[in-house]
Amino acid sequence: MHIAIINGPNLNLLGRREPDIYGTESFELFLEQLQRRFPKTTLEYFQSNDEGDLITILQRCAGKADGIILNAAAYAHTSIALADTVAAIAPPVIEVHISNIFAREPFRHHSFLSGKCAGTITGLGLEGYALAVQYFERH
Amino acid sequence: MHIAIINGPNLNLLGRREPDIYGTESFELFLEQLQRRFPKTTLEYFQSNDEGDLITILQRCAGKADGIILNAAAYAHTSIALADTVAAIAPPVIEVHISNIFAREPFRHHSFLSGKCAGTITGLGLEGYALAVQYFERH
Amino acid sequence: MHIAIINGPNLNLLGRREPDIYGTESFELFLEQLQRRFPKTTLEYFQSNDEGDLITILQRCAGKADGIILNAAAYAHTSIALADTVAAIAPPVIEVHISNIFAREPFRHHSFLSGKCAGTITGLGLEGYALAVQYFERH
Amino acid sequence: MHIAIINGPNLNLLGRREPDIYGTESFELFLEQLQRRFPKTTLEYFQSNDEGDLITILQRCAGKADGIILNAAAYAHTSIALADTVAAIAPPVIEVHISNIFAREPFRHHSFLSGKCAGTITGLGLEGYALAVQYFERH
Amino acid sequence: MHIAIINGPNLNLLGRREPDIYGTESFELFLEQLQRRFPKTTLEYFQSNDEGDLITILQRCAGKADGIILNAAAYAHTSIALADTVAAIAPPVIEVHISNIFAREPFRHHSFLSGKCAGTITGLGLEGYALAVQYFERH
Amino acid sequence: MHIAIINGPNLNLLGRREPDIYGTESFELFLEQLQRRFPKTTLEYFQSNDEGDLITILQRCAGKADGIILNAAAYAHTSIALADTVAAIAPPVIEVHISNIFAREPFRHHSFLSGKCAGTITGLGLEGYALAVQYFERH
Amino acid sequence: MHIAIINGPNLNLLGRREPDIYGTESFELFLEQLQRRFPKTTLEYFQSNDEGDLITILQRCAGKADGIILNAAAYAHTSIALADTVAAIAPPVIEVHISNIFAREPFRHHSFLSGKCAGTITGLGLEGYALAVQYFERH
Amino acid sequence: MHIAIINGPNLNLLGRREPDIYGTESFELFLEQLQRRFPKTTLEYFQSNDEGDLITILQRCAGKADGIILNAAAYAHTSIALADTVAAIAPPVIEVHISNIFAREPFRHHSFLSGKCAGTITGLGLEGYALAVQYFERH
Amino acid sequence: MHIAIINGPNLNLLGRREPDIYGTESFELFLEQLQRRFPKTTLEYFQSNDEGDLITILQRCAGKADGIILNAAAYAHTSIALADTVAAIAPPVIEVHISNIFAREPFRHHSFLSGKCAGTITGLGLEGYALAVQYFERH
Amino acid sequence: MHIAIINGPNLNLLGRREPDIYGTESFELFLEQLQRRFPKTTLEYFQSNDEGDLITILQRCAGKADGIILNAAAYAHTSIALADTVAAIAPPVIEVHISNIFAREPFRHHSFLSGKCAGTITGLGLEGYALAVQYFERH
Amino acid sequence: MHIAIINGPNLNLLGRREPDIYGTESFELFLEQLQRRFPKTTLEYFQSNDEGDLITILQRCAGKADGIILNAAAYAHTSIALADTVAAIAPPVIEVHISNIFAREPFRHHSFLSGKCAGTITGLGLEGYALAVQYFERH
Amino acid sequence: MHIAIINGPNLNLLGRREPDIYGTESFELFLEQLQRRFPKTTLEYFQSNDEGDLITILQRCAGKADGIILNAAAYAHTSIALADTVAAIAPPVIEVHISNIFAREPFRHHSFLSGKCAGTITGLGLEGYALAVQYFERH
Repeated sequence: MHIAIINGPNLNLLGRREPDIYGTESFELFLEQLQRRFPKTTLEYFQSNDEGDLITILQRCAGKADGIILNAAAYAHTSIALADTVAAIAPPVIEVHISNIFAREPFRHHSFLSGKCAGTITGLGLEGYALAVQYFERH
Repeated sequence: MHIAIINGPNLNLLGRREPDIYGTESFELFLEQLQRRFPKTTLEYFQSNDEGDLITILQRCAGKADGIILNAAAYAHTSIALADTVAAIAPPVIEVHISNIFAREPFRHHSFLSGKCAGTITGLGLEGYALAVQYFERH
Repeated sequence: MHIAIINGPNLNLLGRREPDIYGTESFELFLEQLQRRFPKTTLEYFQSNDEGDLITILQRCAGKADGIILNAAAYAHTSIALADTVAAIAPPVIEVHISNIFAREPFRHHSFLSGKCAGTITGLGLEGYALAVQYFERH
Repeated sequence: MHIAIINGPNLNLLGRREPDIYGTESFELFLEQLQRRFPKTTLEYFQSNDEGDLITILQRCAGKADGIILNAAAYAHTSIALADTVAAIAPPVIEVHISNIFAREPFRHHSFLSGKCAGTITGLGLEGYALAVQYFERH
Repeated sequence: MHIAIINGPNLNLLGRREPDIYGTESFELFLEQLQRRFPKTTLEYFQSNDEGDLITILQRCAGKADGIILNAAAYAHTSIALADTVAAIAPPVIEVHISNIFAREPFRHHSFLSGKCAGTITGLGLEGYALAVQYFERH
Repeated sequence: MHIAIINGPNLNLLGRREPDIYGTESFELFLEQLQRRFPKTTLEYFQSNDEGDLITILQRCAGKADGIILNAAAYAHTSIALADTVAAIAPPVIEVHISNIFAREPFRHHSFLSGKCAGTITGLGLEGYALAVQYFERH
Repeated sequence: MHIAIINGPNLNLLGRREPDIYGTESFELFLEQLQRRFPKTTLEYFQSNDEGDLITILQRCAGKADGIILNAAAYAHTSIALADTVAAIAPPVIEVHISNIFAREPFRHHSFLSGKCAGTITGLGLEGYALAVQYFERH
Repeated sequence: MHIAIINGPNLNLLGRREPDIYGTESFELFLEQLQRRFPKTTLEYFQSNDEGDLITILQRCAGKADGIILNAAAYAHTSIALADTVAAIAPPVIEVHISNIFAREPFRHHSFLSGKCAGTITGLGLEGYALAVQYFERH
Repeated sequence: MHIAIINGPNLNLLGRREPDIYGTESFELFLEQLQRRFPKTTLEYFQSNDEGDLITILQRCAGKADGIILNAAAYAHTSIALADTVAAIAPPVIEVHISNIFAREPFRHHSFLSGKCAGTITGLGLEGYALAVQYFERH
Repeated sequence: MHIAIINGPNLNLLGRREPDIYGTESFELFLEQLQRRFPKTTLEYFQSNDEGDLITILQRCAGKADGIILNAAAYAHTSIALADTVAAIAPPVIEVHISNIFAREPFRHHSFLSGKCAGTITGLGLEGYALAVQYFERH
Repeated sequence: MHIAIINGPNLNLLGRREPDIYGTESFELFLEQLQRRFPKTTLEYFQSNDEGDLITILQRCAGKADGIILNAAAYAHTSIALADTVAAIAPPVIEVHISNIFAREPFRHHSFLSGKCAGTITGLGLEGYALAVQYFERH
Repeated sequence: MHIAIINGPNLNLLGRREPDIYGTESFELFLEQLQRRFPKTTLEYFQSNDEGDLITILQRCAGKADGIILNAAAYAHTSIALADTVAAIAPPVIEVHISNIFAREPFRHHSFLSGKCAGTITGLGLEGYALAVQYFERH
């Protein structure tokens, strides 16, 4: 099985950025552990700070991934274009947010992506990515 | 480990109610499978159509459960009282919705519970409960 | 033919509560007259002040009633859970309001039930119930 | 007894217009049946696509009708002028809508007329007119 | 000097309609007195219940009137088309309302016409028309 | 007859302030002409930039004026306290605005005073004060 | 081919009304040129200031036109009844606006018609009608 | 004198729940002290987590209490049904909130009950109940 | 103990202003009775119609009062500046309203002060001041 | 004549993406046909998924194009920056949307670009581009 | 050069009021330092808690100041009257806020003054005044 | 000292774009003068039309700049992602806008950045950058 993990803006700072909200672990380290936990699945990882790049990455992953895990970070709240890409491609997409966006500022309570994704996992930290991988493995 | 699963109004109809949205499996059957998948954890199950009952059940579970999985169904969108209970008790609560509430009517897009729970899993069907159990087992 | 009439909160006070809005006749007396006007139909009557009870009553009636007349009173304006039950069950439901809710406070102008019911009869007093029974007899 | 039935814009297309919403029966045919069902009452019928005409018709009917049944169609949602006429005249007016306006687009959920009429019957098809006639006969 | 007075929907009922709001005097009687009070000015009077008629009347008056007094009644709150006519024609228009629209229902607090008229006189009863005539005579 | 004219903030700048909106005439000059036009009426004039002063002036005028003309300027849009004073005193108050507030910024379209005053004259320049005086003389 | 062009309120003033917004050309002149540019198509032209008339004209055109070009002017922003007619009839309707309604007052930014028409051409002046004719000729 | 004190959802947790907001004293202990402070008045105490129960309790107290003190907790913000009960019964009701609801989340700033109660005491801790008892003793 | 009572605009009219809302008792008379009921406490009384005065009075009282009772009347709904003063000073402030502001016009339902004060007593008439004094005496 | 056609995000998927909304034709194929239909005009084509790229492309085209056709897709609804570019450059821009955005989700009903463009063509499929080219050729 | 600095309500408490937001320095001390930093400019300082006073001060300064620095504090969010004064006078006004109003309560995010002033400096503490002085010295 | 100046979309057009709003000076020329005015500080300049680039530039500057001056232009109003970057990095950021955004279209009145930056300077033209540099030099 082939799963793409796509992270959006500022997630390259993970582990260094606002650690009380996002924790102190870098995503690269977490990714290695994740791959070891799911040895039968090929995980491919992308990160970009750019809305246009993320759209293009999503479009490219569409051809080869069986499932996509998308943490669009702040773009979840502002990007109809990314939501359009999710709706336009075939593989199912799960939206993941590390922090509980519903316990933060009101402008983080709405995501244009949620209605176009298969489902959403929010507030469960980096484990949210692992739960998404597991979901894809079973379905 | 001890985990309480609490289902809200109309979820007793699962398997019979609007199967294109909620599937054809009854929750009782699913629960047996779930217990078999997580043999080390004791799962306790409650269902009520009543907001007040759900509050009292949550309060009682607070004393013995290590984690609570709450699918408050329609009460998620209208009950500040249930959200108060989640905030008042010690064990972490994960909110689960079977269908993707963000792809349905606008009045289902907001949950008073989300900001008070540890996290939310939405749209991944009954598997959402399994992912929540697994999260508790690892944390 | 079998028709269930379900009344919501404070309608047990009918005849005593705000008589300039709701009239001076008690529902029990009215029900006897109604049954006499429609001798070929079995009328079954329920009243509860409790949202959860009303959900359970609706679910139970679903198995035997050919039509349901629901005056959810104030819950019409706040209960998505009751609306979900109406959508989940097979027999058609007609929403009845004794007073003209559109001529009262703005928070009474919206009903979560209306969009899920077959139709709505509002402001025609207790006669609204009779019109609903008659509708079911003809359809 | 004398009852006026007044239909608003596009209801002259009934039977031909969007039959999945409005049915396939023309209003003229229905009216004949209705008159036969209520032989003791004189039914007078008016239809206009014009807001101003409807106001004038309402004003004229006010002098001779014992009750008025008004299906203002789309004007219900936009015409304060028609609502003013209903408030200005003596005979009681019942608002009827054939389709369930609360299950359609949001801009159909509000009627300026409802608060000024005696009551409203919505979503019960052409039978809504019959129920309104019957209400007038009994009150 | 030539002044046109144009009255909108339901103002033909003046004196008979809701006398606690609009008074008991008919407009025709008032008009005679008004003409006597302003003998040097030719007053021309129009009334219609129809938005389209009112637009056409306004357009026609534009060619000969030195000033126009417009009480569009309920259309003030709903008609952008009438406001467009006021903006399109040369003679100044004064908006008059007999009752104090700001002390009534919220939907009467906004007028599409006000911003396009030279000015507005509200709540001063039929005397509002006289004040408007006097304004035109002095300017 | 005794009429009080009360002007609010910045109206002491009249004639010097934004002349394209408010004209080039000072209020003092206009007042002299006004008094000459209405010799039988005693006009008393007050101006203050202060909300509290205006309230006290209104309260004091209440004891001796037969009518009050109030141009509260910007306080019309923000002062519930002034509106309370208008409601609390016996003599009728007419609200006057020199410019057409409905043709300016949206925050000028609403006045807390309008609903509490007898009526409102807007956009007719300084002549608005004269029309208000005349209204009081006739009623 | 048969195409109906239907113009709404105040468009009879074209060429004379607010020429900086609408230009100086009258529609009648433009229509002659348009017919010459599309000799194979029969153009039929209607104008009315009346919402009810426009509904009736649309209904009548429905029987013979292959396509309808509708510039409802201000009624686009207020008329649900016209939108209902567009939805009720068979031939495709293209909405045309001469001026760019999105660069004008906010209340002109929304059209009830747009969602019911095949498409919309806005801001391209009278040429918008020609583009609509051409579209019908090709489809 | 007979006074009923009715507490809503989660107030059974008082003393244990979020002590920085609600304090560390249990309501039962406080009640004993309260009874001692007001020996001439009979205090009767009810608590329920259930909206329907609270409605029924209110209805029952209506027959014997001279005054009712109602802390509906979260139901104050969501229950029109409870507000209806307050409006339907004869004895005056004082609404009490222990914490200052206006200094908390926005959804706690509005209470459906406030407008139907005689008055409201908010933010003064458990002493709020004592002040309400004292009010009833004096009036 | 030293308590300052500060009354805002129009409260100097108490007893004469809208007696059906505010009663017929003047505040000065009430104050004498109040001082007699609480002989151990020094009550100091201020009234002003002026927002700026009230701010300065509050600032001055801050140095010597142990508690402040503030009925800002209409300024409660419009004055952020007064709310800032309450937040800036040390002694606790209790907001009092004589009438039930939640049962009146919607613009009276929100108070900028409430969230900054210790608590609020609303709708209990002049007795509200007495309850506030008593609260301060006990705390 | 030189015309630039600029397509925004996901339009590179045209023909493959949601064919029931966008059709099955790829834009490249359509472009060839379009060039053949307008042989006297040089068409230059750009597509990017990136908001910043689209801004830079627009800025560059500004120097050489006589007209620009812009289908910004989802960015129309979210990008003030693109709208700023349209306002900043000299050549006229026509906004084109292939599908009828007014018949889709509410968040597609508003475009930041529309008010800054010369005009808009919506819902007429790929033919919209051809109509825009033709407009530029004639003006 | 002559510059007036005008401070609004509660700024006389600076140094003592909420020091975590506003710092511990009094404005008088700061003013002396400021005058020393800008010896070529005459600084004149005013403070008032009163909206009306501030209007009058602004009007008086208008005659002699070359530039005005206005920190209206809370009145920035509520006073249209002050904004009118800024618009009515000739010298340019710079709005200064010591704290970052955009990082505080939502009701502090909007200032009626900002759109009428030349510019705004927010969140840079007392240094904001110095920057404003420097701006005036250079322009 | 090291200060980074980062300009957002369309600011590369400065001097050529809408000169009545933005002036006729290019930013490059201004930058040279600015460096000469502040010889002790190293100014580094970046401009991009791309949201993603701006995020990456901000992240990179975070490592070496002592202060950052950010004019995000239109992205200020739409980019939560940029605001997240400002919140995530250590050096203080001052937001600058050349024009007075509060005197322009309503959609320019809100900036997602303002609440996350140290402060904001708006409407003071290019001098705003100089004031920001000076602020950093003193703090």
